[in-house]
Amino acid sequence: MNTAGTNRRIVLARRPHGEPQADDFRLERTALPVPGPGEVLLRTRFLSLDPYMRGRMNDAPSYAPPVAIDAVMTGQTVSAVEASNNPDFTVGELVVANAGWQDYALSDGHDLLRIDAALARPSYALGVLGMPGLTAYVGLLDIGQPQPKETVAVAAATGAVGSLVGQIAKLKGCRVVGIAGGHDKCEYAVHALGFDACLDHREPDLRGRLAAAAPKGIDVYFENVGGAVLQAVVPLLNVGARVPLCGLIAWYNLEEPPAGPDRTPQLLSAVLRRRLKIQGFIIFDHYQRMPAFRADMTAWLAERRVKYREEVIDGLPSAPGGLIGLLRGENFGKLVVRVSGK
Amino acid sequence: MNTAGTNRRIVLARRPHGEPQADDFRLERTALPVPGPGEVLLRTRFLSLDPYMRGRMNDAPSYAPPVAIDAVMTGQTVSAVEASNNPDFTVGELVVANAGWQDYALSDGHDLLRIDAALARPSYALGVLGMPGLTAYVGLLDIGQPQPKETVAVAAATGAVGSLVGQIAKLKGCRVVGIAGGHDKCEYAVHALGFDACLDHREPDLRGRLAAAAPKGIDVYFENVGGAVLQAVVPLLNVGARVPLCGLIAWYNLEEPPAGPDRTPQLLSAVLRRRLKIQGFIIFDHYQRMPAFRADMTAWLAERRVKYREEVIDGLPSAPGGLIGLLRGENFGKLVVRVSGK
Repeated sequence: MNTAGTNRRIVLARRPHGEPQADDFRLERTALPVPGPGEVLLRTRFLSLDPYMRGRMNDAPSYAPPVAIDAVMTGQTVSAVEASNNPDFTVGELVVANAGWQDYALSDGHDLLRIDAALARPSYALGVLGMPGLTAYVGLLDIGQPQPKETVAVAAATGAVGSLVGQIAKLKGCRVVGIAGGHDKCEYAVHALGFDACLDHREPDLRGRLAAAAPKGIDVYFENVGGAVLQAVVPLLNVGARVPLCGLIAWYNLEEPPAGPDRTPQLLSAVLRRRLKIQGFIIFDHYQRMPAFRADMTAWLAERRVKYREEVIDGLPSAPGGLIGLLRGENFGKLVVRVSGK
Repeated sequence: MNTAGTNRRIVLARRPHGEPQADDFRLERTALPVPGPGEVLLRTRFLSLDPYMRGRMNDAPSYAPPVAIDAVMTGQTVSAVEASNNPDFTVGELVVANAGWQDYALSDGHDLLRIDAALARPSYALGVLGMPGLTAYVGLLDIGQPQPKETVAVAAATGAVGSLVGQIAKLKGCRVVGIAGGHDKCEYAVHALGFDACLDHREPDLRGRLAAAAPKGIDVYFENVGGAVLQAVVPLLNVGARVPLCGLIAWYNLEEPPAGPDRTPQLLSAVLRRRLKIQGFIIFDHYQRMPAFRADMTAWLAERRVKYREEVIDGLPSAPGGLIGLLRGENFGKLVVRVSGK
């Protein structure tokens, strides 16, 4: 138990306009929560930072309700059971929880997922073996349906999801072209992750370089960024190409629609002429694929056919800066906050 | 045989800028073509006018090559075999052909489809039992996958494709909301075709009226127009809605992208949040569905469960004006030109 008897938590102080600022968040100290009948007290070990969190900061309908002003920022965690009034959980166990941006939280157990004790790094349950991994798996395989020798393009290529999309596509016999922000990330995508090419979207003429890297066009574009990358990819999509869409990070900080012209007709004309399929998905709809995903991904990791990179930042107070940097593309690998433990 | 020995044909005189003009076409007279070995001479009875023809007039890549300047406008026809050097076809037979905008054409037979002699009106082979019918059938059933009690919205609701989409959706137990240009068309959609509602897109506040007509939101939007109708529909699409896309007639005359703001982020945010599927299709990719479609549609027509309306205009020289009007939404029902015969 926390001898100090206090819980630090980070709440949404105000709704951001555009890029979030440090003052949009507030660190508070409250009394340690006390578990009621059937409840467990959880202590946060790792907090996952993910692009979708930006959407929750807006007061707008999305696939999940917004975070209320003065409420704790939501987020998935790896937490340790500190006290338990629930016979299903014993003190010391590690679980995946939705504890949010705080040291301690309560749960009645319904939303907890026990972590395999054999897992070398518990934080992997927030990434390669968790929601981002399942997102890559379902989006690429079920919606993208890549065939051997097809070309798969993926943006945010060294991110939690993109790095796995590209590696799974390589395992399926595809040509993989990544797009990332910066030379180091691109080097990593090619030399460590085994992508066939990776292009720095900060350099000029992305479209021309993409055309050179995908000489047979693009059959699957795993869309998680939007913006200029999308504009460069669309002209290269082949007849019958599939575009699974699970994020639009380039647009998350938009305050209002960007200046014209309106490019909707161009996009939809391409959809029509080239019989594209653009399909949005939210991973919560696809949890029935978790067992197959876990079996495959555990094997791929054990065989070292999939590599995974984390960027771990220390201490709950670093979470706001971490999310702000994530939305700028400053992280390199899956971003997690180490809140307690090691 | 044509005793005059001449063939009238309408060629593309120049590429239109925006809305086509009469001077973009030219009526010419040439010698009657003479069938070579294995060829048949076809005389056009009916010429189909369809929105896709506008795309062929541009010098831009699409799913089919553009019509060359001074070349005959392409188009599907019902034609009679006038002379035959091909043992598969006998003089007097009616076939669906790709004869284009002219009185006579040659074919080696490979692209001809014999018309069932029992068909009351041969021109139906260009509409309800032909390409537009198959477009409605495949787009709605295979891509849209409507479930009973879902709401299906369709624009150009009294057009060749839209009128069939709505009627098939009714047969599948759906609520059907049409959108059409003008009061008479909307009356027809509701009272003759049996749609649950039909909205005139020329009246104000389409989005508000659409919300009232689709109180449970829209599950399938059969997209064939784009433009303002699309903007009104998108906010009403339900989670998991499907958008089969086979035309964008509102944008066919666009010279350049419309003024801003750029609405692409809005559209794709909706795709993401509401897990939409937008899928373009071209009917030529789906001819394997023709037998099932013909069997179903023939039965529906015989049982009077599907109604079909044609607008027949007379004489080959009326074709350019017909297409110009079609792109303005002036036709009411499937537009065909009676070129010869009755």
